[in-house]
Amino acid sequence: MSDSRQTAEAGDFAAWMGAQGARTEAALDAALPAAVTVPCTLHEGMRYAVLGGGKRVRPLLVHAAGEVVGASPEACDAAACAVEMIHAYSLVHDDMPCMDDDDLRRGRPTVHKAYDEATALLVGDALQTQAFVVLAEAASLAGLGADARMRLVAELARASGSVGMAGGQAIDLQHVGLAMSLDELEAMHRMKTGALLRASVRMGAYCGTVDEAGMAALERYAAAVGLAFQVVDDILDVTADTATLGKTAGKDAAHDKPTYVSLMGLEPARQLAEQLRTTAHEALAVFGARARRLGELADLIVLRSN
Amino acid sequence: MSDSRQTAEAGDFAAWMGAQGARTEAALDAALPAAVTVPCTLHEGMRYAVLGGGKRVRPLLVHAAGEVVGASPEACDAAACAVEMIHAYSLVHDDMPCMDDDDLRRGRPTVHKAYDEATALLVGDALQTQAFVVLAEAASLAGLGADARMRLVAELARASGSVGMAGGQAIDLQHVGLAMSLDELEAMHRMKTGALLRASVRMGAYCGTVDEAGMAALERYAAAVGLAFQVVDDILDVTADTATLGKTAGKDAAHDKPTYVSLMGLEPARQLAEQLRTTAHEALAVFGARARRLGELADLIVLRSN
Repeated sequence: MSDSRQTAEAGDFAAWMGAQGARTEAALDAALPAAVTVPCTLHEGMRYAVLGGGKRVRPLLVHAAGEVVGASPEACDAAACAVEMIHAYSLVHDDMPCMDDDDLRRGRPTVHKAYDEATALLVGDALQTQAFVVLAEAASLAGLGADARMRLVAELARASGSVGMAGGQAIDLQHVGLAMSLDELEAMHRMKTGALLRASVRMGAYCGTVDEAGMAALERYAAAVGLAFQVVDDILDVTADTATLGKTAGKDAAHDKPTYVSLMGLEPARQLAEQLRTTAHEALAVFGARARRLGELADLIVLRSN
Repeated sequence: MSDSRQTAEAGDFAAWMGAQGARTEAALDAALPAAVTVPCTLHEGMRYAVLGGGKRVRPLLVHAAGEVVGASPEACDAAACAVEMIHAYSLVHDDMPCMDDDDLRRGRPTVHKAYDEATALLVGDALQTQAFVVLAEAASLAGLGADARMRLVAELARASGSVGMAGGQAIDLQHVGLAMSLDELEAMHRMKTGALLRASVRMGAYCGTVDEAGMAALERYAAAVGLAFQVVDDILDVTADTATLGKTAGKDAAHDKPTYVSLMGLEPARQLAEQLRTTAHEALAVFGARARRLGELADLIVLRSN
């Protein structure tokens, strides 16, 4: 590929990212109750937790997977909002004093710092519920039919519950200060982070038309990207500073948590992330140019600096 | 009505309650992940929070409303489990130190006392999610069709979120130690307790066939019963002891919370509960004998001692 074509494609991806970011922000703004709706503090807190920050990796995956299967961007908006609300709720609760006890998130005070613990608890609770309100009520999903909408509900609920994201968080808590094998670490992260990233890809696919082979390829992509995301998170926790991350750096070591870096070492962890990026691209080959954004997102996830 | 007929009907209602209680316990047991499923502590905690206690008012309302509209008891089981899981999650989180800070629930240590705060947070989070897993995946709902299932999801999500139960809890928190008018108190309770009780009735109705007039009558019943439930809760907090309640008595006054008793006085609160019971029965008149269980539940809710 020529240098000028590379530059043009990178510029094009940056433009797509910018447009998608603005689109997701507007969709989230519309999918959250207004701050003037009673109870105002709760709604302000929900908006504070969700709007104006975050990499929006999950919404980007929904839309990019939707592009592969010819989904309408409007249907993807609702799915993207729902999955991002689940992600945001998990951050609000994970940051609370009884969990990771963190003061900083997305470069701003965490919800329990900006408000108080009780509000943070309710903000997280209500954001989780709002994700299902969105899937149940979004007008843009009406064209999908009730069967497809039920698949979205099932996918999101399964991925975020006790055998998915919340379960992974429980395993994480139980292993603070304890030894963990690489297999155990991978199993934990497949639940804690991987399940919701996988759900993002699958939900994008459910917004369009996909056959079994296509879904299997998307699964392989999502599994690789989901794991890569966590490996890179572990690397950045060691190599990046707090200002770059927008959250407290070095907190895995401070909490004595097993990570890919602590179990494998830094360089092998980097090699693993690179391998997973290759696996992700190979899985997409069957789709050709339609999967270009998913490929670029795999690069972004592995090569990011925060 | 003769004394012997009254006794027979009371005995019949007690038998129905017993059978429904056993049915709901079995359905909840089946709808929760096994305690040996990883992560075990989380699943044990979820089961501890849900099983083996509670009056099961919401499942009873689902089944009784289902009887009015000819719903299958199996479909009602899934809706009943979902609404009870939402109720149980709200109790787990409400009992936490940053909220009501309570040690006793259903006659046993609260989840954060039996386990720890982080586990209680995750148990509540995962129970909320599990409610939507049940609605999305329960085989017994398959006969309903996806449209009816989406209505169940929408109803439960709307009733439990920021403009329903969680919102009512937020308003409650904001008013500790502050004055509140009767209208404000009623508005709060319509969200905090009433919304989920109303959803229980509506979800039972969605499991069968109901016309607009029928749903409107059920709405009037649910509104009266939902409010009566809270008025009686406020009365019992003053008049009953901790052993009878299975939760700490007198805690409204201890937390300086506005209640029907503190705003109206004990006797007027009792009269209000009685009026609401009458309203509930009047709303049911259109259904005749089919609504017998709903009528008996209105009596139970107002005349209960715990």
